[in-house]
Amino acid sequence: MTTAYELRCRECGRAYGNQPLSICEDCFSPLEVEFDLERARGRFTREAITAGPLNMWRYKALLPVAEDYVPTTPAGMTPLLSAPRLGARIGAKNLYIKNDAVCLPTLSFKDRVVAVALANAQAFGFDTVGCSSTGNLANAVAAGAARLGLKTYILVPADLEPAKILNTQVYGATLVRIDGNYDHCNRLCSQIAEKYNWGFVNVNLRPYYAEGSKSVGFEIAEQLGWRLPDNVVVPMAGGSLITKIKKAFRELVALGLVADKPVKFFGAQATGCSPISTAVKAGADGIEPQRPNTIARSLAIGNPADGPYAIKAIRESGGWAEDVSDVEIVSAIQELAETEGVFTETAGGVTTAVTARLYAHGRIKPGELTVSCITGNGLKTTDVLNGAYEQAVPVKPKMTEFAAWLDERTGELVEVA
Amino acid sequence: MTTAYELRCRECGRAYGNQPLSICEDCFSPLEVEFDLERARGRFTREAITAGPLNMWRYKALLPVAEDYVPTTPAGMTPLLSAPRLGARIGAKNLYIKNDAVCLPTLSFKDRVVAVALANAQAFGFDTVGCSSTGNLANAVAAGAARLGLKTYILVPADLEPAKILNTQVYGATLVRIDGNYDHCNRLCSQIAEKYNWGFVNVNLRPYYAEGSKSVGFEIAEQLGWRLPDNVVVPMAGGSLITKIKKAFRELVALGLVADKPVKFFGAQATGCSPISTAVKAGADGIEPQRPNTIARSLAIGNPADGPYAIKAIRESGGWAEDVSDVEIVSAIQELAETEGVFTETAGGVTTAVTARLYAHGRIKPGELTVSCITGNGLKTTDVLNGAYEQAVPVKPKMTEFAAWLDERTGELVEVA
Repeated sequence: MTTAYELRCRECGRAYGNQPLSICEDCFSPLEVEFDLERARGRFTREAITAGPLNMWRYKALLPVAEDYVPTTPAGMTPLLSAPRLGARIGAKNLYIKNDAVCLPTLSFKDRVVAVALANAQAFGFDTVGCSSTGNLANAVAAGAARLGLKTYILVPADLEPAKILNTQVYGATLVRIDGNYDHCNRLCSQIAEKYNWGFVNVNLRPYYAEGSKSVGFEIAEQLGWRLPDNVVVPMAGGSLITKIKKAFRELVALGLVADKPVKFFGAQATGCSPISTAVKAGADGIEPQRPNTIARSLAIGNPADGPYAIKAIRESGGWAEDVSDVEIVSAIQELAETEGVFTETAGGVTTAVTARLYAHGRIKPGELTVSCITGNGLKTTDVLNGAYEQAVPVKPKMTEFAAWLDERTGELVEVA
Repeated sequence: MTTAYELRCRECGRAYGNQPLSICEDCFSPLEVEFDLERARGRFTREAITAGPLNMWRYKALLPVAEDYVPTTPAGMTPLLSAPRLGARIGAKNLYIKNDAVCLPTLSFKDRVVAVALANAQAFGFDTVGCSSTGNLANAVAAGAARLGLKTYILVPADLEPAKILNTQVYGATLVRIDGNYDHCNRLCSQIAEKYNWGFVNVNLRPYYAEGSKSVGFEIAEQLGWRLPDNVVVPMAGGSLITKIKKAFRELVALGLVADKPVKFFGAQATGCSPISTAVKAGADGIEPQRPNTIARSLAIGNPADGPYAIKAIRESGGWAEDVSDVEIVSAIQELAETEGVFTETAGGVTTAVTARLYAHGRIKPGELTVSCITGNGLKTTDVLNGAYEQAVPVKPKMTEFAAWLDERTGELVEVA
């Protein structure tokens, strides 16, 4: 190729240069960005990365933006936390949390993909952008577009969580509530993008957008001291993230930044919307679309665009997929918060509960270096914890009242004096 | 002194070594941590800082923790964003946002002070920690203590925002709702800390806790390329933050990391709780306590512990203080989100509205390098935006329906085909 990267059809390999397009005109398969890795070799080095900014743009040489692109918003570079207290509860001895619950700027991993997509929207000259979204993407697009002064239309299922709706509208984006689920929104966006020539980050800009997820994989490897883990547990909605973490690891190996080794990929879904995990468990290659019915609304994609690729990534790696109930999701949100001080949204509850089950079933061994990917913040889905905690009667601000309250509560003498 | 730092009385100068104590036994003035700057000179260099971790612990040599302290949670190192679009609206040409709305791990600047306080709580051997809080501190203590496995009691005013209550309980902390305001909680905490020998981060650990705020100042200077701004606008609750940013700047100058220059400090309060700004405007040195009545509950401290020191810092710098109405706070939250993609809580609305007024009144000149400190996240105070946005009727997922909706909305033809 003559450029640093270009679009190629994932199936027939036809090259498309760079343009806002996501589907092959010949075989209707999805397009993907492919990099000229030899060309990147001199620029994508440990030294260059370490000297770069303290955010995902340190990996710019393998993100699809112009070489002279100047980022305007820090995004990514979230903590990789060791999780000994959660590990003790679920039988893991070498467990890490990749904590995108605190991803900048809008507290989900979608900030990564949106950062790349909006850079391309600007490069392609779009003055109006948008997306179909289950919430987190809406937040990220609205905030990112506000900062760039772009007009924004965002299509969401009408039943979305209030915090995610507000966290879209506050940035001045036009929110279009669709009388349907995510898959309805998504289909409509394809038509809208074409008719009005808008840049929809997860539709006509999707190949560029998806590359942003590689930054999760790059960060995990760098934060582990330039090595790959044994296992990665990843939540699946459209199925893209898990494939892109795998792609990031492959690119790191190809360019010699990490040693090659087997990495198993494990996918996590809610049972109420589990088309990918169902296929993995059944040994199927294709997706049987589902009608979502789960509190994990950010994962509620019944017909995942990258489902078949996610299945392939999991199976080829020797990994597995699991799905958990809504009750387990809520418990796992609480368990992760209580043990590691990380408050995640429902999707993170899914990942945590699935991680626990994978250890319980012996699919992950206690000592293996395992990274569990938390992708969004608990403040966005507070509704699922409604009623979970007592609202105790207020205590009068007097020492005698407090002491009486404490005695009653603890049933033991904690006084030291 | 024989240690790298120790407690000293701010007024009489009596030295106390290092212990969980916040008030001078002789003159009842507050204690403060003082560093042996000469001793820090070799360790607190630009080179050492740059080579440090990508969080506030890169400034460890001037934070009161043991030299061999190993941090367990990344905190701080939040973006310093240029704010050209907000600037265009308010007449600022060189405005930056220090964005602690995305501070790790619990999305407010309180994560900085808690990180330092809990390190000291552990060093002093406390097995139970706590605080009195208007919300953000509660979240930070609960999350931090969960990760360390400490027992936690948190006292809050009974009328706190639901998101801040949930975001405390989810970490397993015991939340004690007090039938009173913050000042009632705070007084009670002093008695509790003494009676039960608990480590209350903003009571008996307060001098250590407060030093954590210096990291805001260190980061601003480093992110500006090792120089100081002309002006800093800081929200004021207890009044500590503004004095600690000033202290950070002084220490940077003393150790030669930045060139000395005048910096004006501006304080921001809500009119419904404005004891400090009222004193500044009136030319008074002391605080007249107020009974708080504002939606900016994280700033609702009617009798601020560091009020007199905040007044002094502002006045000596040639700065000023302002306060704004609840209506202005909500508008400013929206304006900051729409222009810069930053969604802040009410305290950030206060800072943004005050910043605008300071430009409007000519107290800050358009070209001066000004940093406006945003200290908390908008997802914590969503209640103040209730009813601010229309909940439009859902649109059916059909192109004809969407086109009709769009035509009606825009009243113009946006179709390009």
